[in-house]
Amino acid sequence: MNEVQMAHGSGGQAMQQLISQLFLEAFANPWLAEQEDQARLDLATLAAGGDRLAFSTDSYVIDPLFFPGGDIGKLAVCGTANDIAVSGATPRYLSCGFILEEGLPMATLKTLVESMAATARSADIAIVTGDTKVVQRGAADKLFINTAGIGAIPTTVHWAASSLAPGDVLLVSGTLGDHGATILNLREGLGLDGELASDCAVLTPLIQPLRDIPGIKALRDATRGGVNAVVHEFAAACGYGIELNERDLPVKPAVRGVCELLGLDALNFANEGKLVIAVQREAAEQALAQLRAHPLGRDAAMIGEVVERKGVRLAGLYGVKRLLDLPHAEPLPRIC
Amino acid sequence: MNEVQMAHGSGGQAMQQLISQLFLEAFANPWLAEQEDQARLDLATLAAGGDRLAFSTDSYVIDPLFFPGGDIGKLAVCGTANDIAVSGATPRYLSCGFILEEGLPMATLKTLVESMAATARSADIAIVTGDTKVVQRGAADKLFINTAGIGAIPTTVHWAASSLAPGDVLLVSGTLGDHGATILNLREGLGLDGELASDCAVLTPLIQPLRDIPGIKALRDATRGGVNAVVHEFAAACGYGIELNERDLPVKPAVRGVCELLGLDALNFANEGKLVIAVQREAAEQALAQLRAHPLGRDAAMIGEVVERKGVRLAGLYGVKRLLDLPHAEPLPRIC
Repeated sequence: MNEVQMAHGSGGQAMQQLISQLFLEAFANPWLAEQEDQARLDLATLAAGGDRLAFSTDSYVIDPLFFPGGDIGKLAVCGTANDIAVSGATPRYLSCGFILEEGLPMATLKTLVESMAATARSADIAIVTGDTKVVQRGAADKLFINTAGIGAIPTTVHWAASSLAPGDVLLVSGTLGDHGATILNLREGLGLDGELASDCAVLTPLIQPLRDIPGIKALRDATRGGVNAVVHEFAAACGYGIELNERDLPVKPAVRGVCELLGLDALNFANEGKLVIAVQREAAEQALAQLRAHPLGRDAAMIGEVVERKGVRLAGLYGVKRLLDLPHAEPLPRIC
Repeated sequence: MNEVQMAHGSGGQAMQQLISQLFLEAFANPWLAEQEDQARLDLATLAAGGDRLAFSTDSYVIDPLFFPGGDIGKLAVCGTANDIAVSGATPRYLSCGFILEEGLPMATLKTLVESMAATARSADIAIVTGDTKVVQRGAADKLFINTAGIGAIPTTVHWAASSLAPGDVLLVSGTLGDHGATILNLREGLGLDGELASDCAVLTPLIQPLRDIPGIKALRDATRGGVNAVVHEFAAACGYGIELNERDLPVKPAVRGVCELLGLDALNFANEGKLVIAVQREAAEQALAQLRAHPLGRDAAMIGEVVERKGVRLAGLYGVKRLLDLPHAEPLPRIC
């Protein structure tokens, strides 16, 4: 069978074969191998050192399925792992739900499943439970993936956007908008191939050392809506204002090129491997040094601060501050 | 806005409004209200009385969205809750991922979200974290829902299909195929409206008393692939054979009518509120009595037994045994 057929989602023999020949083999782990209706995870192991369980989910509908720097499978592991990791937890276990369009080449599915497996393995995450649905040709676009994940938050970590206060500063862990610009270039044929790649990555190794810095207030990974969306979420959660400095925003030349070409702002572009970090001013240098010590955080920068005056503002190159709105819609559908 | 627009999935203002005006209001609970990237669940509360975490996921793509006895929202809560409950765990927390087609009437989404919320509330389950994606018109069929869920398995419960042995008997908690026959009737216009309804229900109240019966070996809810699929899973997991008695299978007259009309077997029809239970013979009567004491288990019956001889067989009305194959594909796509 070279293509996904309706039978692969029917609960019959074809589905059993798909599960045993593809998923069990690629995701190989003892929990999945039990083939019960649920994974059964040892709570003592899971809870070691933690007192709260971080639980998060995302569906992935990105188009195209493959792009420089990643694919929908890698993204489906990174995205949910990062949503857990920004709580301070170490992401440990993922569930995985596939919605497949009838006729999807089996080779495409296999490549994506192997990409998920490789990404998870290298991040020490196990994909322990799953589900596969198949819908008729035309009822879905190729494939969609949902992942949900869990991990324990260390007892000592209490990061929360609501704790931000005037004087805290904002850091980003690297350049803005790489993922969004990469997808835009692919879709619009802007001809910047080779200069752009998605930043799609599991950020746990970058986040873990931050748990030991007492001044860290809150973390988010800046995905859909970009750094701008996170900054607005921070402002809403703490009730204060935020000011960013345009000249401090790290942006790669190729991404800046895409922005200038299309009149768009890298602050609104999606990232898939970038953190926004709120930290007390006196701990900022330590946090920056820690970030820069890891390849994923090489371009980390301080980009702004929390202020009394409500609203999100951007100070331009000549110091003039303007209100930074959260757009009604991001320019790019199906970016993740 | 009367329809779902691409902007509702973009990470911008429109998405924020959808979250705050629809999801936060319908699913109202303190974890979701925190609006962090992940729910943060107290591990001590979650683990009370348990030593393993049951973790499961399912995507729901059923067509049509509304049917007698339920809708895709109710189904998305029941299905995943049941996959957790059959481990012996009490399902406590769900995640929820929506994939919406641009143009979906907002009223439809609202009705389905409220149905999810009502189903979860009445089962004491909190929907604590979520995600919304929107794809262009034609890239998905109306809406798909993924839920993942967790709950702790009591220390005293160790149900596993691998533990079945010859002499154990099989029970079902009620009539076979109600859900499948209901959807088939709707799709094919068989004219049995009024006589058929899905059995879609959260089975926790039916399962919890079974935890105190020492002879229970394993539970599954018989969804896609019907009771036949579960029986084959049981046989494969334990390495023995299973024999069912045709005359003991509880089937409603209207479901039997659908089967005869179309030459199909209720054993292969999907259920959404029925358990298959493997139990030691000496505990079978106690288990049956316990099941029948609850409205969801009124029609519980003993339907077969585990035997030495490998293979799944069905003894017909005149005692002749024939091999019962697992079909390559179930006759009904998008049944759940």
